[in-house]
Amino acid sequence: MDEFKLIEKIRGRFSAPAGVLGIGDDCAVLPQKSGRDSLVSTDMLMEGVHFLREDIRAFDLGWKSAAVNLSDIAAMGGVPVGSFLSFSLPGNLPEGWTDEFIEGYRSVSGRHRCPLLGGDSCSSPDRICVNVTVLGQCPSGTARKRSDARPGDLICVTGPLGDSAAGLRLILEAPGAARTGLESRLVGRHYRPQPKVNEGVLLAGQEGVHAMMDISDGVASDLRHILKASHVSAVVDVRSLPLSEDLLKICQERGWDPVELALEGGEDYELLFTLAPDSLDGTVAKMHQNGFHLYVTGTVTDEAGGQLEWKGGDRDFMGFRHFR
Amino acid sequence: MDEFKLIEKIRGRFSAPAGVLGIGDDCAVLPQKSGRDSLVSTDMLMEGVHFLREDIRAFDLGWKSAAVNLSDIAAMGGVPVGSFLSFSLPGNLPEGWTDEFIEGYRSVSGRHRCPLLGGDSCSSPDRICVNVTVLGQCPSGTARKRSDARPGDLICVTGPLGDSAAGLRLILEAPGAARTGLESRLVGRHYRPQPKVNEGVLLAGQEGVHAMMDISDGVASDLRHILKASHVSAVVDVRSLPLSEDLLKICQERGWDPVELALEGGEDYELLFTLAPDSLDGTVAKMHQNGFHLYVTGTVTDEAGGQLEWKGGDRDFMGFRHFR
Repeated sequence: MDEFKLIEKIRGRFSAPAGVLGIGDDCAVLPQKSGRDSLVSTDMLMEGVHFLREDIRAFDLGWKSAAVNLSDIAAMGGVPVGSFLSFSLPGNLPEGWTDEFIEGYRSVSGRHRCPLLGGDSCSSPDRICVNVTVLGQCPSGTARKRSDARPGDLICVTGPLGDSAAGLRLILEAPGAARTGLESRLVGRHYRPQPKVNEGVLLAGQEGVHAMMDISDGVASDLRHILKASHVSAVVDVRSLPLSEDLLKICQERGWDPVELALEGGEDYELLFTLAPDSLDGTVAKMHQNGFHLYVTGTVTDEAGGQLEWKGGDRDFMGFRHFR
Repeated sequence: MDEFKLIEKIRGRFSAPAGVLGIGDDCAVLPQKSGRDSLVSTDMLMEGVHFLREDIRAFDLGWKSAAVNLSDIAAMGGVPVGSFLSFSLPGNLPEGWTDEFIEGYRSVSGRHRCPLLGGDSCSSPDRICVNVTVLGQCPSGTARKRSDARPGDLICVTGPLGDSAAGLRLILEAPGAARTGLESRLVGRHYRPQPKVNEGVLLAGQEGVHAMMDISDGVASDLRHILKASHVSAVVDVRSLPLSEDLLKICQERGWDPVELALEGGEDYELLFTLAPDSLDGTVAKMHQNGFHLYVTGTVTDEAGGQLEWKGGDRDFMGFRHFR
């Protein structure tokens, strides 16, 4: 079954208590009496689906497991409070594997002052499976949801798209192979995403920032979630997508389409948000002052159908989906 | 590596912020400003380690996944607030499998008013893997930790031990086999544990209840955690262990040792707690008024070494351990 249909089905069977944001956004949002909202997100990484053991280093798997969850907290504009790590490990891992895995996990979560507060460990008959839950918080009512995009908003992203997808393509072409500097950088973008926690907090402090999420399945898929949840449509100019030098170089070498990688690849873990046009100048200034990036790539329109129109592209784009 | 050694190792690398109880108890405890403490627990269930697909029904797997986590909230004396479910599913599951799984999950979590608030779903190359995180809460400072047992305390449990272990033995002997009524009841005790949430809340309301945890690895292993964390020792009278009629009957039929199953089997998900002797009468009365059980099985002593002495048994007992 299609992952999103399954989520819709499950969502129909559970109802969140009044005031609580449940299934369907980057995080659940639970109001506390103390003027803060609690944020919770969880993600599973299964060997053979999300990573290949023969390619990924233990350090990188630990990093990525923490980073993709921290990114969900960032997507709401929250700060992480603590994390919970479950993993099942087969008996045939090399000496020191678990140490390196934990070191990678600690490296990125420590950078965002997010202590590991609990978890579960067990053996596995064959495959490595990791699940992380991150707890975060934000001032009451400031969490940025997917459902708040407004007609006229600008569609923005915080950084270059497609590098991670190019890295993944390199991995799948030749798992475990020796790599050039260029290839290693792109593979590194796939394995060690930088969760945009500080960017998210800054953006959630700007009134003009309406809807926000992180890019995990690719803009083509992720932006559709915002549009559907907000009952709006959008036009994206594919010529304005931020693309890195490295991406353009590898695409030239291999004959790949950078726009396809940028829109359909996913796992960039940049933030995707919509912004009131009159807040653009102020928000750009604040972002640049802090060393952060902001790229405008489209506009929200008032059609209710969640339609996504591409300007400057010669075809339609879809994002990555599990279960297909 | 031994699971507990691994946990100790990981614990040494992360430090919880001041006031936060991190790795090493049934739940993490995070104080909130609102007079409540947040509780968080997470557990992973991997096919081939925690269950056999050819034996377990989807409904039961859903039930058990939720129940073992609710039990961790119960073990602290908290009430559940919401849960988060991650699962990876292979493509070859029968039609309707996911529906039944969700129905089992909902059945036990609904009973404890614990809504599903989020999660993650993905495909799996072969094995089913499920991870659940439960969020709970309790009034500030009332969470019952493993480290609060005091010399002189009585060691108590809330219900019969060993049924689940007998059920597991029946499953492993003949996965998927037809079963008698007796066998089905014991297998049901293994697959559909009843998290003792209401019992836990009642017990946490009694001042004389000091240390508490749930029985997941067997009293022989679990009680040692309380003793070590509390720097005390204990004497357990194996003749006073609560054993069900069903357990005694199957042990007679098969020539099994009921005491071994009760102490080493695990997965009973009853509560194990220590109680000031002068609170016994009042606590028993309160428990019975509410239709709950309480069995005294031993005494905490003041030796610091975490020693566990068995009275009435002819040998030492150890609990179940992963990673061996």
